Amino acid sequence: MHVLILGAAGMVGRKLVERLAREPHVLGGDIARLTLADAFAPVLPAVFADIGKALTLDLATPGSAQALIAGRPDLIIHLAAIVSGEAEADFEKGYAVNLDGSRALFEAIRQEGLREPYTPRVLFASSIAVFGAPFPETIGGEFFSTPLTSYGTQKAIAELLLADYTRRGIFDGVGIRLPTICVRPGTPNKAASGFFSNILREPLSGKEAVLPVSETVRHWFASPRSAVNFFLHAATMDTSLIGPRRNLTMPGLSALVGEEIEALRRVAGERAVSLIRREPDAVIERIVAGWPTNFDASRAEQLGFSAENTFDEIIRVHIDDELGGSIR
Amino acid sequence: MHVLILGAAGMVGRKLVERLAREPHVLGGDIARLTLADAFAPVLPAVFADIGKALTLDLATPGSAQALIAGRPDLIIHLAAIVSGEAEADFEKGYAVNLDGSRALFEAIRQEGLREPYTPRVLFASSIAVFGAPFPETIGGEFFSTPLTSYGTQKAIAELLLADYTRRGIFDGVGIRLPTICVRPGTPNKAASGFFSNILREPLSGKEAVLPVSETVRHWFASPRSAVNFFLHAATMDTSLIGPRRNLTMPGLSALVGEEIEALRRVAGERAVSLIRREPDAVIERIVAGWPTNFDASRAEQLGFSAENTFDEIIRVHIDDELGGSIR
Repeated sequence: MHVLILGAAGMVGRKLVERLAREPHVLGGDIARLTLADAFAPVLPAVFADIGKALTLDLATPGSAQALIAGRPDLIIHLAAIVSGEAEADFEKGYAVNLDGSRALFEAIRQEGLREPYTPRVLFASSIAVFGAPFPETIGGEFFSTPLTSYGTQKAIAELLLADYTRRGIFDGVGIRLPTICVRPGTPNKAASGFFSNILREPLSGKEAVLPVSETVRHWFASPRSAVNFFLHAATMDTSLIGPRRNLTMPGLSALVGEEIEALRRVAGERAVSLIRREPDAVIERIVAGWPTNFDASRAEQLGFSAENTFDEIIRVHIDDELGGSIR
Repeated sequence: MHVLILGAAGMVGRKLVERLAREPHVLGGDIARLTLADAFAPVLPAVFADIGKALTLDLATPGSAQALIAGRPDLIIHLAAIVSGEAEADFEKGYAVNLDGSRALFEAIRQEGLREPYTPRVLFASSIAVFGAPFPETIGGEFFSTPLTSYGTQKAIAELLLADYTRRGIFDGVGIRLPTICVRPGTPNKAASGFFSNILREPLSGKEAVLPVSETVRHWFASPRSAVNFFLHAATMDTSLIGPRRNLTMPGLSALVGEEIEALRRVAGERAVSLIRREPDAVIERIVAGWPTNFDASRAEQLGFSAENTFDEIIRVHIDDELGGSIR
């Protein structure tokens, strides 16, 4: 099998590549070729040195999608995107990458298929940003997409294209709407959502973290390990079970910030919790108030996707995968 | 006011232009300039000879959107589209006009606004084809768009773009999701939906018509006059009342084919009804089974949009507007 991963240098992309390196048969067969691509140089694990390539390229550059598809990958995992904040700040760049880049990829597949029959599986990383407030308490499987950001708009459009190209038999697509990933590894960043991870990751390493919202804020989470599992499952599942509605809200955990903190207390003790500093920030409070809090993901669950059921599990995944299995 | 109508030679476009010619102040002020554009030569009414232009152009041709927007129209009514059947038969043409053409129009407005502030009102003709079966019995205002045609996909994408460009302040957009228009004037065509109009229009003129489905088929209708009224209302309403969800399912009448026939009997008598010939067609029956049958259009109603409440009214509109007010 030839596997192409776009956006392989991003957080989920790196985790996915590391997982393939650790479990080369997790896709159900040998990986004969692996192509990693990203606007920032992706890292090719040593185990793939003979069969792999790491390419630095911009999907929005004319010809780059065709060049990638010329190798006729069997499985294409499309994680490449300009993130929410940047797509909002730079209108043209967001549309160029998130809409035109995705469409160029889909079109390159169609063109290759016109040349010689070709129907790869395409997994697309979408987002709960396709939904826009006001929301019902639980967002059902048939709730409409009325995004309130350009990023969400671009993801919703790519979802529509993916479904139509799949219906047409051009490729076999699955759209994976990711929850907010928690605990994000790395250092605190300026994303408005950063605190959800910061208040766990930093105290688990003995460092202070700032909580800018109240403990009654509710949100929708899954671990990085679950995110990787979503793509691995979508890569190997029987897609004929999905039907024409090819974009799936992934399972996640709906939890309060207060529940995050209680889980931290159970797993890491009072000292960790005491490292959380409350600094209410009205701007972040207002942004977060516009985000969804809970989903009915039963369609994806019935199709075999799963995520964590408690924040204790989410924290243990972080300790296992990032901290070598124990704290301090 | 400078008014631009794209798709002015289509059925709704022609009716709209005729209405403006009859009631030049229906938009609440003088029309200082009128530009009609279509891929097929539009007809400029004599009353607009001094202030109007009729242009034959293809929105998908590079530069044509910019040329139209260079005139800085205050109101843009975008009805131009490749219809459903053709967009399904010709993948590239459908995407080129319905997606790229609409986007080129929206982008031309953005570019003109970057040059010098400019925020026209943009009314976009969308379609209930943005919805795909299976449906609930009544499609609510928050039901998702999972189109089962490329046409529906292209309309759903243009809706998303319209909402994002409006949210960004680039223009003041309203998406108008039209019901199936009935009674369509003209001659019977090969559209799968043609019979809904044929079985009224032809008998009203003393001619035979074929009914290929059973009388228990339910569908969603409005008259051509209502379609024009939707755009006139959207052109003059206070759009700040809409909020960010800029695409509206228009009001319509949910009715059975049997109810159409009973209305025909009441309005035109038994002899008209006897001209309907039943010729069941399994293919058409199957296509029609995938179409929506009823909507909750209360959002649009609350915003002042309205349509017919009975098929008797729909038939009388046809008699008034197409047959000079009486039959035979």
